[in-house]
Amino acid sequence: METRANDARHRQRQQKLKEQVEARVAAATGKKGILIVFTGNGKGKSTAAFGTVTRAVGHGKTVGVAQFIKGQWDNGEYNTLHPLGVEFHIMGTGFTWETQNREADIAAALVVWTEAQRMLADPQYDLVVLDELTYMLAYHYLDTDAVIAAITARPAQQSVIVTGRGCHARLLDLADTVSEMRPVKHAFDSGIQAQVGIDW
Amino acid sequence: METRANDARHRQRQQKLKEQVEARVAAATGKKGILIVFTGNGKGKSTAAFGTVTRAVGHGKTVGVAQFIKGQWDNGEYNTLHPLGVEFHIMGTGFTWETQNREADIAAALVVWTEAQRMLADPQYDLVVLDELTYMLAYHYLDTDAVIAAITARPAQQSVIVTGRGCHARLLDLADTVSEMRPVKHAFDSGIQAQVGIDW
Repeated sequence: METRANDARHRQRQQKLKEQVEARVAAATGKKGILIVFTGNGKGKSTAAFGTVTRAVGHGKTVGVAQFIKGQWDNGEYNTLHPLGVEFHIMGTGFTWETQNREADIAAALVVWTEAQRMLADPQYDLVVLDELTYMLAYHYLDTDAVIAAITARPAQQSVIVTGRGCHARLLDLADTVSEMRPVKHAFDSGIQAQVGIDW
Repeated sequence: METRANDARHRQRQQKLKEQVEARVAAATGKKGILIVFTGNGKGKSTAAFGTVTRAVGHGKTVGVAQFIKGQWDNGEYNTLHPLGVEFHIMGTGFTWETQNREADIAAALVVWTEAQRMLADPQYDLVVLDELTYMLAYHYLDTDAVIAAITARPAQQSVIVTGRGCHARLLDLADTVSEMRPVKHAFDSGIQAQVGIDW
């Protein structure tokens, strides 16, 4: 008897949940590309972006990636996605704290940004990823106005993902979807080193 | 002159940052597989898991995936990753609120969990993803003790990623790395519908 009552309650709860979700989806009738920001100090920002690229590629979408920091390491997402037709433009200078040369960093950022701008203006791209862009704005390597303008003026069907800590407030305002990755704990802190295939 | 002073300060800051990061990496000398949990109500949990799979595949790692909810939709991550050798086991019943049948859900969950248990016991797998597992525990579809035991007893080099909202406290305790995806805003709420290649 109790099991049957539980089952009935479960069905009722699930029915209610189903109706709520369907109402929410039905209310969302706009069809346009969206701007997603993955920010915060926790793990999963760039990986969420590349998970989305993996999904998009699986649906035959055209994807371009501009990576504003990583570049000197063996790059797992590049190894997998580039052979599948994803276009990559990667800053060649590695992490900025490896170079300690502001002018060289800015020059390298501008090279990648030029490619990003081209992709943001081209309706052939369904999805453009601006990985770790937030640091370029925080360090004033790129002009915030120019970045906002290029994202705002992109083709209507194109989606954009921006990743990185400390996202600029104007980008957050512009975004349709923002997730903040909050670090609850991190393996580094318990003495486990960064690992190939997991951390990069 | 001011530019030069700025540059010096920038170099100093970056040097300090570099030293801090290197000290943290050097202190983290343990080599073992880790348990990562992506939880919270925001976007990016499953996509971060599949981004990590994409990276791992790019480094030649062997990856198995157990997906505890999705299954009836056209699945972008499957379309991309399965042809690259990633093993998938997907619950065939779709979102649970579509079925409203607790017993059928439990049976479907157990089929996928049996495959997950096998992968968690096999040192050939470098990475096992338990996508949306948290709901199986929250709904008592799977036994928490059995799940904890299988993850705890896995081969030392194997990493595991668990995704889903409302992660069980015992899994959080067991995890090495936990990120909570916090929804700052979501496109659904501003009337934009879920889109192929972005939302699934």
